[in-house]
Amino acid sequence: MFDLKNYLAEKRQSVNDALNQLLADANPGEVIHEAMTYALMAGGKRIRPVMCLAAAEAVKGSSRDVLTVACAMEIIHTYSLIHDDLPAMDDDDLRRGKPTCHIAFDEATAILTGDALLTLAFEILALESDKNLIQALKMLQIIRLIAAAAGSRGMIQGQMLDMAAEGRALTVNELESMHALKTGALIEASMQCGALLADADNLKMRCIKTYARNIGLAFQVADDILNVEGNPTVMGKAVGTDERHGKNTYPSILGLGASRQFAQKLVHQALQAIESFDNKAEPLRALAGYIIERNR
Amino acid sequence: MFDLKNYLAEKRQSVNDALNQLLADANPGEVIHEAMTYALMAGGKRIRPVMCLAAAEAVKGSSRDVLTVACAMEIIHTYSLIHDDLPAMDDDDLRRGKPTCHIAFDEATAILTGDALLTLAFEILALESDKNLIQALKMLQIIRLIAAAAGSRGMIQGQMLDMAAEGRALTVNELESMHALKTGALIEASMQCGALLADADNLKMRCIKTYARNIGLAFQVADDILNVEGNPTVMGKAVGTDERHGKNTYPSILGLGASRQFAQKLVHQALQAIESFDNKAEPLRALAGYIIERNR
Repeated sequence: MFDLKNYLAEKRQSVNDALNQLLADANPGEVIHEAMTYALMAGGKRIRPVMCLAAAEAVKGSSRDVLTVACAMEIIHTYSLIHDDLPAMDDDDLRRGKPTCHIAFDEATAILTGDALLTLAFEILALESDKNLIQALKMLQIIRLIAAAAGSRGMIQGQMLDMAAEGRALTVNELESMHALKTGALIEASMQCGALLADADNLKMRCIKTYARNIGLAFQVADDILNVEGNPTVMGKAVGTDERHGKNTYPSILGLGASRQFAQKLVHQALQAIESFDNKAEPLRALAGYIIERNR
Repeated sequence: MFDLKNYLAEKRQSVNDALNQLLADANPGEVIHEAMTYALMAGGKRIRPVMCLAAAEAVKGSSRDVLTVACAMEIIHTYSLIHDDLPAMDDDDLRRGKPTCHIAFDEATAILTGDALLTLAFEILALESDKNLIQALKMLQIIRLIAAAAGSRGMIQGQMLDMAAEGRALTVNELESMHALKTGALIEASMQCGALLADADNLKMRCIKTYARNIGLAFQVADDILNVEGNPTVMGKAVGTDERHGKNTYPSILGLGASRQFAQKLVHQALQAIESFDNKAEPLRALAGYIIERNR
């Protein structure tokens, strides 16, 4: 029986150690460094890096470069949270149970901290020193993939659509398109890059992408459900906020019951996509269930 | 006699054409694309890309990759202006004679537009398709250099220091350190990357870096002087704003006359650094004078 709890703890630890090391190489003692550390080490779930590592393992194995890419994904995710929390955007005071970056520091520092983290992500992707030539070409491909997923055709466009949708009722298809960009693109890129570094063949890559697309959406549906019925103490953030802000969510469009069924259907589709994988894909299989069963 | 006016017009045109092409490959029709185009094509001086191209030429010649790097530097510069202009930072309404991004669109869009441009810069650096393996390693080195110059140990730290200095009198050394990070790092990286792509040897690279460091600072001294005695119509932005905001500037610390002399000394040092270069460095020599004689 695969021990997911132990697996998650182990992977999170290695990601946190690597992130701490990266921050130690930055500019300690400066306010910007303090704010970067504050935001990055606030105890996130590390879903994207874990997904990246698990995808690499499911295909073949791991490598030092996979951990770097995993960290870059978490750094980009963290920058996007800092900027999304700003007064001009979602205006959130609490994140992961702690004051958001612009509350703990100030607005200008929060903007620059997000900028610094985004820049750091690309720096570390280019940084690995012992690269051979083939690996260098692969890292350029990975930088391209990540930038496309995080940029104006990916995550940022998702945030634009999310803001434009405020106070307007979306169809379930529009909601899905928005989430595919806002959170799906980065989760898919995390897994794709992990598989790529593990030299996945075309067939395996297609399977990983299908898994990631379904799991990314399931993750969002689960988030929406948690915002309705989650425990704010466990989650470290307020619940009921989506409804108060008139946000379009799966529960608001489909209702809670149908949302749960939809999440289960997505997880089922994700599991089907990696059916042909051997037991090295056990972490991915266990993670699929975790995504919708988590309580934070 | 070298025709700088013609040279600048030609280089700006090729940079603008390349930027337009890059934007056309982004996601036209969307608001984020409109805002990116608005900010990027607002008629900047294109100093950084021109410096990048001129450094490559001074060493050997140009290549398609140099133009890409030149565009990336301008894209990063533009993102930094958008974020610096935000209400939480310098709160500027006018830039290059037009409403700033957060005035023309809104604050959230301006934050995301800056983010999207920063991401795009790294995407295009990784994008060049006809790379051979050696070139791939070099582009990773360039991404590393640019990220270090733009990130929390470079430009962003400069902006942090600038904000921290508001209402406090800096020494001329503190002012220089701040500018070395805030504007110098990116100008130096522009030239270093240009020279690197043109296969500069170590000696030439050191000369280019010394030139860049002096010119970068001269550029800032000239900017400070223009903020005192420039023509707002020609410059497309208000003058006298530094004094009103109680900013530390060269004129405020040294006085106008000594600031002019200091700028000339820096230009002289820049010219000395490239004395041994042949006539392919004529653009760099002419640019050195232009940096402190420009009227916008």
